[in-house]
Amino acid sequence: MKRLFTHAHILTMIGDPKPIKDASLLVEDGRIAWIGTQMSKAPKADEVIDLKGRLLLPGWTNTHGHAAMTLLRGFADDLPLQTWLQEHMWPLEARFKGEQVRWGTALAVAEMIRGGTTCFADMYDHMDEVAQVVEESGIRASLCRGVIGLGTKEERDRKRREAYQFARDWHGKAEGRITTMMSPHAPYTCPPTYIDEILADATELDLPVHIHLAETRAEVEQNRKDYGVRPVEHLQKLGVFNRPTLVAHAVHVTEEEIDVLAAHDVKISHNPGSNLKLGSGIAPIPAMLAKGLRPSLGTDGAASNNNLDLLEEIQLAAQIHKGVTMDPEVVPAYTALQMGTVFGAEALFLEEEIGTLEVGKKADFITVALEAPHMKPAHGWVSLLVYSASRNDVQDVFVDGRPLMRNRELLTIDEEKVIHEAVRAFQMIVP
Amino acid sequence: MKRLFTHAHILTMIGDPKPIKDASLLVEDGRIAWIGTQMSKAPKADEVIDLKGRLLLPGWTNTHGHAAMTLLRGFADDLPLQTWLQEHMWPLEARFKGEQVRWGTALAVAEMIRGGTTCFADMYDHMDEVAQVVEESGIRASLCRGVIGLGTKEERDRKRREAYQFARDWHGKAEGRITTMMSPHAPYTCPPTYIDEILADATELDLPVHIHLAETRAEVEQNRKDYGVRPVEHLQKLGVFNRPTLVAHAVHVTEEEIDVLAAHDVKISHNPGSNLKLGSGIAPIPAMLAKGLRPSLGTDGAASNNNLDLLEEIQLAAQIHKGVTMDPEVVPAYTALQMGTVFGAEALFLEEEIGTLEVGKKADFITVALEAPHMKPAHGWVSLLVYSASRNDVQDVFVDGRPLMRNRELLTIDEEKVIHEAVRAFQMIVP
Repeated sequence: MKRLFTHAHILTMIGDPKPIKDASLLVEDGRIAWIGTQMSKAPKADEVIDLKGRLLLPGWTNTHGHAAMTLLRGFADDLPLQTWLQEHMWPLEARFKGEQVRWGTALAVAEMIRGGTTCFADMYDHMDEVAQVVEESGIRASLCRGVIGLGTKEERDRKRREAYQFARDWHGKAEGRITTMMSPHAPYTCPPTYIDEILADATELDLPVHIHLAETRAEVEQNRKDYGVRPVEHLQKLGVFNRPTLVAHAVHVTEEEIDVLAAHDVKISHNPGSNLKLGSGIAPIPAMLAKGLRPSLGTDGAASNNNLDLLEEIQLAAQIHKGVTMDPEVVPAYTALQMGTVFGAEALFLEEEIGTLEVGKKADFITVALEAPHMKPAHGWVSLLVYSASRNDVQDVFVDGRPLMRNRELLTIDEEKVIHEAVRAFQMIVP
Repeated sequence: MKRLFTHAHILTMIGDPKPIKDASLLVEDGRIAWIGTQMSKAPKADEVIDLKGRLLLPGWTNTHGHAAMTLLRGFADDLPLQTWLQEHMWPLEARFKGEQVRWGTALAVAEMIRGGTTCFADMYDHMDEVAQVVEESGIRASLCRGVIGLGTKEERDRKRREAYQFARDWHGKAEGRITTMMSPHAPYTCPPTYIDEILADATELDLPVHIHLAETRAEVEQNRKDYGVRPVEHLQKLGVFNRPTLVAHAVHVTEEEIDVLAAHDVKISHNPGSNLKLGSGIAPIPAMLAKGLRPSLGTDGAASNNNLDLLEEIQLAAQIHKGVTMDPEVVPAYTALQMGTVFGAEALFLEEEIGTLEVGKKADFITVALEAPHMKPAHGWVSLLVYSASRNDVQDVFVDGRPLMRNRELLTIDEEKVIHEAVRAFQMIVP
């Protein structure tokens, strides 16, 4: 099956921030087979899709989240972190069963596709349900069973086994759209021996590690009390960074710690929306970029954001660091766009497959309409995307060249049913 | 003409943040005549409009901006402020004539109505053109000819006369939708004698003052060098705060200066998007709220934002101060929503007419759809608006009860023509 997409301005995200004007893109067996402007040289296709002058670029990659938490969106806001977690989130999450995770995740995937996300990372429980939603919806995902090591040895062992089996069984499934990681939840929720064991599993399965790191100031202090060192040194000593690792948040890290992360090529998921809303702080992204790190972007769960709009994270990344450093030159628009696309692919160890548009890569891309008043005049498309657009400007979403949304209509998800079931699944667990 | 709007969840923005469920609202001669839930008690109407379960609330008030600068949207980004201003903005703005201001403003008004703004403040040049766009489009506005006192005495006098005449001629026009202010541009662009003269004009016309204040650190330093004091004390000594005054930005103000502003009931326009993008800094909003100030929100011009999306400013106001102070309890969602509505009305000295929904006030309101995945489940509508929604969720916009947008279609603006003319008007001035 060969599909030729025509009349698009293509932003490949390779090098030059200038789109290729009025270009075409051929997809064959889910991969990009040709990009060009001369239609006479375009290979023959079974189907031709006219994109009507829209901007075409790689879909967003959301590198950290807990999709099923959409069910708790807005359930409790504007509270101190511990109150929010212990009195509102954890008691309800404890009631989550497969059904809640299935419909919460389906709601999340509907929202993410609507916003232009083509690949997301998920760290949660009942992950078989998440994987099935990914399989059915056609989106791409990097999944892990996040394990908290605070319970009895039996509980810890059970969770570890679950995480191992899930990671082994689902890696490479759904026509290759699902990859997996191993995930000790955080240094403050997993004792060192537990992290050791999970690390051994990750090594055996040859999978990366996805872990929360230095999200709050309190957590850094606790780590120092418990282990005598700050979290970065703690994880380094445990050997975590000897495996390919993705850390979420990294808000409270020093210059020296950024050096350690850079030396081990640790991947960063910057979650500005969640970090702001929960009052966690603001990650030192300009310092990370200056030291050669390529931070990606995540929404975190919808209970702490409260949406899964990765374009909003791109926009926050381009805005807040300028304000905090009082330097309008840090995190330029194109860098913010890279954070949401190519750096995201790298963070999920998928840079061979996605993140840029080039021949041989998976055909994961979106289109953006350029007609609305807020997109005029069109002095520069990168600027318009990063500083002017909103998620509703995304028109079409393709993964493996397969349409998941066309002209803002979802094609693989029964949206009405998903919303109905998600609301019902939440009502089942309210006290 | 009596119009009854039915089946809406009405958020009046008076006191309680809980909407009145499934309520109706009667508009007579442009004003709210009745709000209630018992249809049997509803007065008779000439027309009944079913709002289909949408959320209904006051439209946004955008309290600081330069609408015509939409023409320069994205023309230059990510540059140091002085380079951006002196090398990119000012040379092009110097070429603006009536035609550029007319179409740039029309583009801005189209974008603002689409985003749910029902009233905006504008400080610019060629203000007759702006007023005509306001008159024709049906939106409400507080307008002023912003004057810079850096030229010759003849130029200064000419500008002052223009500002005076404009403010006098247009105040109360367009069925009362236009009010005016007097605007010395900023302490750093107007010598003290010039500010004195404009203040005398404002007193004579009995109009408020709209002025930039303490936007950047450099400007505060310059003020100290030039006049021996910081800008707040400078304007206080000049007697500016003895008149009703709206100051834009107020980024670099101390605790003591906030006390001065509060003592004089000075109105604040907080412009988070612009302040972040230009690297100006982050205004101390939590301290202002603690001292009893009621800061409003503005987008500033589209060249420094780069859109006119007031909901985004509401969302930034609710997010960034939590992150900067590391306190998730500052600027709660409902406060941010007040900043975008009722505090905005106060900032433009229009609180008797707009800002809340109550009998006797002008019928300026918007509706928001609650059906999309990112708006589910609906645990709290204020939370959804402030933390989850985007401008495209705004469905309908009414000013004086007159529909300016219905189901996302603009009714008073020929959008295609405006975009065409705005692009043409820009092309006329590029070198």
